[in-house]
Amino acid sequence: MSIVVGYVATKEGRAALRAAAAEARLRNARLVVINSNRGGKDLDSEEQARYEHELELVRKQLDDEGVEHEVRQLVRGVEPAEDLVKVAEETSAELIVIGLRRRTPVGKLILGSNAQRILLEAPCPVLAVKAPQE
Amino acid sequence: MSIVVGYVATKEGRAALRAAAAEARLRNARLVVINSNRGGKDLDSEEQARYEHELELVRKQLDDEGVEHEVRQLVRGVEPAEDLVKVAEETSAELIVIGLRRRTPVGKLILGSNAQRILLEAPCPVLAVKAPQE
Repeated sequence: MSIVVGYVATKEGRAALRAAAAEARLRNARLVVINSNRGGKDLDSEEQARYEHELELVRKQLDDEGVEHEVRQLVRGVEPAEDLVKVAEETSAELIVIGLRRRTPVGKLILGSNAQRILLEAPCPVLAVKAPQE
Repeated sequence: MSIVVGYVATKEGRAALRAAAAEARLRNARLVVINSNRGGKDLDSEEQARYEHELELVRKQLDDEGVEHEVRQLVRGVEPAEDLVKVAEETSAELIVIGLRRRTPVGKLILGSNAQRILLEAPCPVLAVKAPQE
């Protein structure tokens, strides 16, 4: 059994990763971190460096806490939703964790298509978290 | 701290309630069960009787397991999403649990408006579960 989390270098991605690590500890489950992107152009080098740095910290923290984990960097030219659902199926995930953007006060009532796809197609429960308010 | 679950007498509602009870045990949290509806006409008497019966079983099971809980039946003429978010705020919820319908193979990729509102407006993480496949 595993917990699968989609990680991207945004504040929502970081919130998802933190929540997923907490769930892995709570449930004594293996954590599978998926960084899915279509290629280099969507990610600038500064964000990429921050991502690598944070992932290093997460790895170290998970190591220290004895949480079994792996990181998969997927660049398969498909939507992140497809990668996440597939890995959840492959690893018999008990939970998928995703980050959601906060609705702005005047924001439209619409979830991103990736979030909707994951919620609807996931083979297991999905935990949706938001970034802490600034 | 509490876990808030929206319960209606559907298979998705039952799945949400079961998942929420499991989370309450796991997190040693108080469970707040919200049955929100606009009035009697949306609920036929057979479903209502099943709901009462199941809720009785849930109450008994939670009692047996020592999970602190309460059931609130809200008929305030507002959308269930509004009731859930409000109770989550009032009870400093650490988690909201909701049931989602399964996407049919030819189904449109759209989440219900209540689910979207809860996901976007919740003051805490939201766990979305589906009913077991038939």
